[in-house]
Amino acid sequence: MLYLIGLGLSEKDLSLKAFELLNNIKNIYVDTYTNYFDFDLLWLEKALNKKVIPLSREDIEKIPTFLEIAKSEDVALLVSGDPLVATTHTDILLRAMKNGVQTKIFHASSIYSAIAETGLHIYRFGKTASIPYPEENYFPRSFYDVVIENKERNLHTMLLLDVKREKNLFMNPKEAIDILIKIDEDRKIKEIIIISRISHDTQRILYGDIYELAKFDNEFYGLPPHTLVVPADLHFAEEEYLLSLAEIYKNSKNK
Amino acid sequence: MLYLIGLGLSEKDLSLKAFELLNNIKNIYVDTYTNYFDFDLLWLEKALNKKVIPLSREDIEKIPTFLEIAKSEDVALLVSGDPLVATTHTDILLRAMKNGVQTKIFHASSIYSAIAETGLHIYRFGKTASIPYPEENYFPRSFYDVVIENKERNLHTMLLLDVKREKNLFMNPKEAIDILIKIDEDRKIKEIIIISRISHDTQRILYGDIYELAKFDNEFYGLPPHTLVVPADLHFAEEEYLLSLAEIYKNSKNK
Repeated sequence: MLYLIGLGLSEKDLSLKAFELLNNIKNIYVDTYTNYFDFDLLWLEKALNKKVIPLSREDIEKIPTFLEIAKSEDVALLVSGDPLVATTHTDILLRAMKNGVQTKIFHASSIYSAIAETGLHIYRFGKTASIPYPEENYFPRSFYDVVIENKERNLHTMLLLDVKREKNLFMNPKEAIDILIKIDEDRKIKEIIIISRISHDTQRILYGDIYELAKFDNEFYGLPPHTLVVPADLHFAEEEYLLSLAEIYKNSKNK
Repeated sequence: MLYLIGLGLSEKDLSLKAFELLNNIKNIYVDTYTNYFDFDLLWLEKALNKKVIPLSREDIEKIPTFLEIAKSEDVALLVSGDPLVATTHTDILLRAMKNGVQTKIFHASSIYSAIAETGLHIYRFGKTASIPYPEENYFPRSFYDVVIENKERNLHTMLLLDVKREKNLFMNPKEAIDILIKIDEDRKIKEIIIISRISHDTQRILYGDIYELAKFDNEFYGLPPHTLVVPADLHFAEEEYLLSLAEIYKNSKNK
């Protein structure tokens, strides 16, 4: 049996049910590669009195020995967030099923619902998109089309920022803003919201004009993870909530 | 301090962090009204050796004594799913802030990311909609417009089903399918996916032609909660996954 277990958004965000299960499992692995990952699992190793074995990208994608073991023993694979948000993990389940391994998922918190901490109503979000790092001779723009299509339907867009774990690169809001400004020639994007280190003690929510927020450097935005939102027109209740708790960076109507 | 704590999708889905916090809190309330709620919290009361006080809709919306207490003491309010998915809970936080009460959210699993158990890629979902119970002289159709708009962009639509807790009414997939068929005069909706009792031991995923699935009665679909998806064109990987794990009800290409 293969248990795919979500660790949620921050330390000890895994479910109580998953924690109880882990007490009875000998083979525990963790995928630190697919998503942004900043969990120190020492507390978990201590609490369980077991080693949690980190997997490399190769371990996960090419030589999945943990799948071999799962044919005859219980195996837990820990992943940050809610497991199936990353298609890599759906692939792992599919491969397990093809190998006759039963699977079970333990859900946990995810940015897909937690983004409501901004006060924006979850049912007003359209399709989510990711901003990738531009490469030489390749400046992707599909995420921008998503923003604009959502805007036309008066929907918010959640923008996930690129993670290149193998190069230790995690896109900073400043980099994301610069990409957005470069691509948005008609200046359709006026305001953005940034949520940093959601569910951590150091969580921050910033709201303001994109050109005001572009004035800050990478350091100002601090450690990852960060998520951006390009809001549609805000409902009264959304704006009231956002203004109550965010750091505001607006030019004209500065609060 | 007011702690808003997500219970997640099923028994013991709350986070370990939240569970540890509850050990140190005297005033623990639970909102059983806003969302579908099928948690038996006896295990929690036993584990904590404390009473968990259920709140009525009136307690929550009109006379929030728990907010009064939160001015001077720590108060925990438990809610199913991830807290801020329901705007009622955003309103509670806003009211707390206005009363000078500090707030903190403990996230948990939610259908918004767990819907990926269907194998559908989460980034291919457009705006979510809810199917309400039709009322006399009022047959709402905005959810249908959302489905069609998403379909035109080749995006999946997650459809949440109405809950009328005060009347003990939880919309069954059969009722939802009948509403969809009635409203979809041009027969644009061909296939649907139903996920029942997600994250419970009795979880089921059904996939098929809407007219095939319409043949079953309420009982066939079992106990709530249920969620529907109107899929866009399925990617190869999505279809492979879905066919591997769903109960299939297709007419022509029956598997």
